[in-house]
Amino acid sequence: MAGEVPAKADTGREFFVTRTVGEALAGFRPERRTPAETVPLSAALHRVPAEPVRAPHPLPGFARSTVDGYAVRASDTYGASEGLPGYLDVTGAVLMGTEPPTEVRQGTAVSMPTGGVLPPGADAVVMIEYTQVAMPGTIEVVRPVAPGEGMVRADEDAAAGAELVPAGRPLRAQDLGMLAAAGVTGVPVRARPRVTIFSTGDEVVPPETQALRPGQVRDATAVALAAMVSDAGGEPAVAGIVSDDAAALEAALRAAMPGSDLLVVSAGSSVGARDETASAVARLGPPGIWCHGLAIKPGKPTLLADCGGVPVIGLPGNPRSALVVFRLLGVPLVHLVGGCTMPPPEPTARLKLARDLPSATGRLDVVQVRVREHAAEPLFGQSALLSVLTAADGYLVIAEEATGLDAGSEVEVTLYR
Amino acid sequence: MAGEVPAKADTGREFFVTRTVGEALAGFRPERRTPAETVPLSAALHRVPAEPVRAPHPLPGFARSTVDGYAVRASDTYGASEGLPGYLDVTGAVLMGTEPPTEVRQGTAVSMPTGGVLPPGADAVVMIEYTQVAMPGTIEVVRPVAPGEGMVRADEDAAAGAELVPAGRPLRAQDLGMLAAAGVTGVPVRARPRVTIFSTGDEVVPPETQALRPGQVRDATAVALAAMVSDAGGEPAVAGIVSDDAAALEAALRAAMPGSDLLVVSAGSSVGARDETASAVARLGPPGIWCHGLAIKPGKPTLLADCGGVPVIGLPGNPRSALVVFRLLGVPLVHLVGGCTMPPPEPTARLKLARDLPSATGRLDVVQVRVREHAAEPLFGQSALLSVLTAADGYLVIAEEATGLDAGSEVEVTLYR
Repeated sequence: MAGEVPAKADTGREFFVTRTVGEALAGFRPERRTPAETVPLSAALHRVPAEPVRAPHPLPGFARSTVDGYAVRASDTYGASEGLPGYLDVTGAVLMGTEPPTEVRQGTAVSMPTGGVLPPGADAVVMIEYTQVAMPGTIEVVRPVAPGEGMVRADEDAAAGAELVPAGRPLRAQDLGMLAAAGVTGVPVRARPRVTIFSTGDEVVPPETQALRPGQVRDATAVALAAMVSDAGGEPAVAGIVSDDAAALEAALRAAMPGSDLLVVSAGSSVGARDETASAVARLGPPGIWCHGLAIKPGKPTLLADCGGVPVIGLPGNPRSALVVFRLLGVPLVHLVGGCTMPPPEPTARLKLARDLPSATGRLDVVQVRVREHAAEPLFGQSALLSVLTAADGYLVIAEEATGLDAGSEVEVTLYR
Repeated sequence: MAGEVPAKADTGREFFVTRTVGEALAGFRPERRTPAETVPLSAALHRVPAEPVRAPHPLPGFARSTVDGYAVRASDTYGASEGLPGYLDVTGAVLMGTEPPTEVRQGTAVSMPTGGVLPPGADAVVMIEYTQVAMPGTIEVVRPVAPGEGMVRADEDAAAGAELVPAGRPLRAQDLGMLAAAGVTGVPVRARPRVTIFSTGDEVVPPETQALRPGQVRDATAVALAAMVSDAGGEPAVAGIVSDDAAALEAALRAAMPGSDLLVVSAGSSVGARDETASAVARLGPPGIWCHGLAIKPGKPTLLADCGGVPVIGLPGNPRSALVVFRLLGVPLVHLVGGCTMPPPEPTARLKLARDLPSATGRLDVVQVRVREHAAEPLFGQSALLSVLTAADGYLVIAEEATGLDAGSEVEVTLYR
């Protein structure tokens, strides 16, 4: 072995153009979309509607009191005051969940619980606080009400056919509530994108490995990627570790393609291992590799491809670089493939930068930060270290055109959750 | 029924003090905590560690190259430059995942892949870019390296016994990666709080009900509360609809207590129904009701109790009010009971208020807003309307002491996700 030099650097990469993160987000837009399926409402949280869901009938469906009081004709209360109350005959009482026993005519009132059905003839409800019983069967009204006061119309929450939830926005708690109110108990959503995650690297062993041999490292990336996939609405499948061999990797990827909407490969750390990944992906099918090399730090040796209709992301070998890149590029791809056009907002904070941050122009720098007393403290440390990510509360990016950021400048930090 | 007036207002409430939301958050701190359990790493995302998890051994466990290049003694490279390169004999090559074949002595180098084990005697790795092959078995080094460059120490990611993740903070993707790297495949976490959700109201029917009778409404609250519980790390159980009857409700709650870490009751809408809820809860056990009445709009008729060691939240009957209150008070209770002392950050945005917002002093106002072109547009509409919540992108609060907010003022909006 004496005198042997490492494998030639960059061979696999220099055939391909390096892209910026912005170019990749805007330009790499595979056409794959997951099919629609119907899921029960109780399982629909954060699922993405495949089409707008519309109200099958008006909601609440009947004119409804919103206060405890008396259903009246509003005109009967005009001019009423403490000094000159209006008098109304109480001709009945509405009970919850039942039809009104009688209508409201001029000069009469019907007692109402909050949520009760407004009787025919009534156009408002006087709150009980603005009435008193003058004598059995008669109330005094001491304040006027306008038509529509103390009630909601039969279609005020939604008209028949109105859009209850839009397509493309993951369902939130209140959206489920609205669908329940409308009786929509099966929701047409996009299937979760099936994301198959491969790890490569002859030094990589499963996390379960208790005793490591010299030079071995446990696979830290796959479980973390799986977590990010499921947070993004995907269905991760951890497919295990493949050796640094283009033929073996190609076979493994090809076998996974029919059951995957997205393939993710965290490459081995060395240049040689990365070259194997690129060769394997290049052979999977057209149109093939879109870029190999991203203007980002950490994360430069990133590969994006679309092979036979299945998007493929090749990630750097360092777990930390892999997670940084997957957050910026992989999560949006999971959203894209799963039809999520309105992704949920990320928590952010505007903070003062605690110290100067140098940066090279022409690449996006992703800097991990800790938040302390309204300041963002950059965390340094080599990209091989995962502890920098676990110590971080969030990250900031330094744009391609910037040469750095000064201490004290205001920065936007995206917070981890 | 003629002449009958609605049930006396407020009877159930006026025995109890109205509290502010701040008082409730600070003062209502039930002691209940869920027990610890061990879950596999692949199921640990967002779970809350019951105790700090420590590194069983140093990480990565061996001194490791972070670049492709040559392991050297740094002192052998001092003074090297393009014009005056240093010459080193290459005595071997490290392969990924295996022990180095030889040590590095003065004047020698060993070729290294990224991630390889540093040979004994080496204290730095020169990047391949700063070397060239002078003749077979000899390289030129054209740039000096400092000790520690191009490598990480055996305990640089974590020393043995170092805290990998803290107790009380839900596990994030990168935390799972770190635990995997350390070989921690079973994580001691708090059990998910079991939250049993009851709906009451004689007018309320299950969401599956296709044809409604006059006055009936489908239960919109339970499924939305269940969604908020699971987002907060709890395990919801939707227990169904109980009639507006204190004895029936008490029996149902009592039966659920042994299997619940938190009970949630969305009360009927009418004052009578709310009184029934209070009576039922009051009889469940000491210390009992902590407050009945919150200085908040919407959501005033909120009840907080701790009955025989099980916290209880009674929510207003309006679905919208119930969801607003549960977000502000119920979610923190799920966190508290589940040992989550560092809840994940919520997405927020600082925006210009699009119009004046009036508010009464002495109560917290929760205003739903839509975000349009960096402005927060308040959404009005009665608290009975769910559509206001589904149209909202987030909400803002107007503090108890404020009398309102002016158009154009900067507000912090909490965004839904």
